[in-house]
Amino acid sequence: MNLLLVDEAEISGAGEVVLVGTRSKHVREVLRADVGSELRVGCIDGPIGRARVTAIENDRVHLACSFDGAPPKIPPVDLLLALPRPKVMARLWSQLAAIGVGTILLTNAERVERYYFDSHTLRPELRREPLLEGLSQARDTRVPHVQVCKELKPLVEDRLDELFPDHRRILTDPAYRRSIRETVRARPGKILVAIGPEGGWSGYERDMLERHGFTGVSLGPRTLRSDTAVVAILSIVHDALAHP
Amino acid sequence: MNLLLVDEAEISGAGEVVLVGTRSKHVREVLRADVGSELRVGCIDGPIGRARVTAIENDRVHLACSFDGAPPKIPPVDLLLALPRPKVMARLWSQLAAIGVGTILLTNAERVERYYFDSHTLRPELRREPLLEGLSQARDTRVPHVQVCKELKPLVEDRLDELFPDHRRILTDPAYRRSIRETVRARPGKILVAIGPEGGWSGYERDMLERHGFTGVSLGPRTLRSDTAVVAILSIVHDALAHP
Repeated sequence: MNLLLVDEAEISGAGEVVLVGTRSKHVREVLRADVGSELRVGCIDGPIGRARVTAIENDRVHLACSFDGAPPKIPPVDLLLALPRPKVMARLWSQLAAIGVGTILLTNAERVERYYFDSHTLRPELRREPLLEGLSQARDTRVPHVQVCKELKPLVEDRLDELFPDHRRILTDPAYRRSIRETVRARPGKILVAIGPEGGWSGYERDMLERHGFTGVSLGPRTLRSDTAVVAILSIVHDALAHP
Repeated sequence: MNLLLVDEAEISGAGEVVLVGTRSKHVREVLRADVGSELRVGCIDGPIGRARVTAIENDRVHLACSFDGAPPKIPPVDLLLALPRPKVMARLWSQLAAIGVGTILLTNAERVERYYFDSHTLRPELRREPLLEGLSQARDTRVPHVQVCKELKPLVEDRLDELFPDHRRILTDPAYRRSIRETVRARPGKILVAIGPEGGWSGYERDMLERHGFTGVSLGPRTLRSDTAVVAILSIVHDALAHP
């Protein structure tokens, strides 16, 4: 835990927070904090600051927090992802939050099985914990917005322009040759990355995405499993934005 | 399975291979191959070619193979990795093989627990299957060489020059500011990447690595979990080599 995350509703007017449960246990047993210890704290979707341990009684840790840092910037990368298998998606939440993604749109595709959408891991209350875990790891407070859109076509045709009016759009698929870097570097600003399912987007889907402003790019000659590919692609996009 | 991998010892003089077990099942049930079907095949650590299914009897698939492609090149990236927790290491084998690593040196560090070295996942017979799975995914045949070196200091001081005489050496740690790309781009050729444990290399370890030719680089401001960091760093290094 590189940043202790607290919800705005947990903070009293004077900046007092009382931790119980997992976070209290972590602060006492892993960080071995004692009265007087200082911790890095972040308000979920808000600013970062410092917390001082003022008291520890049984399983309750009392903190005096001051949130004097600025809220972290929302990451300049958004993701349109063909929903992976539930086991893979469950592993991805914390990694996506740690790498830094503004919005995650999960969508259908020809090579996505419909039953993936029934998975527990998509439930807001079950994905929140791994998302916060990833943020805490990366010292961020901005919870990625997650939207589940069961139909790719209406999403692409009717909603993307409104959701991402100014984004450069890229589409990764082994069908293309252009590099991610070359395309991202060509125009600065925010990026929407579309990543297909295991087995790739269909020809129909690629055409539709291209017609709606997506530039096709390739990750290179090696085909990666979808969880590895997502981490690899987002890392390269972030790197290309940071070091054009 | 994007490439069916067979061992040289399984190939008869005329190029016949008989599959049983997992690969036979995969060919019959997932690829739904029938007599006459053609498959992409690779000889482990050797060339790539085509296989034609000549007969299927019960659980045995007979193939006639011709290995007329060149053996894939050994990846230009080697890894010196502070041994992660066993659960993380078990997940990394296939990802490392898929991304492409020539040699994997697993080593100790101040922030590595000694008991990690007792883990089953380090056993050659248990890591081979996930390594081959990663190669098969990425259509490669070159099995990464794995060496377990329990002591970092003698490894760095006495063996690296012999193992990697011409490699550019980089060392990733949040302590540095220089970007991976800038450093990789500065001189082409093979790269040895040193990735520290969860919590980073110690000051002593960083000094030692720097004295032995490693340039310190940073992945950026976000701290990632060690499995995510390994995939992110190797992807950026490969990308920087491919698109300088």
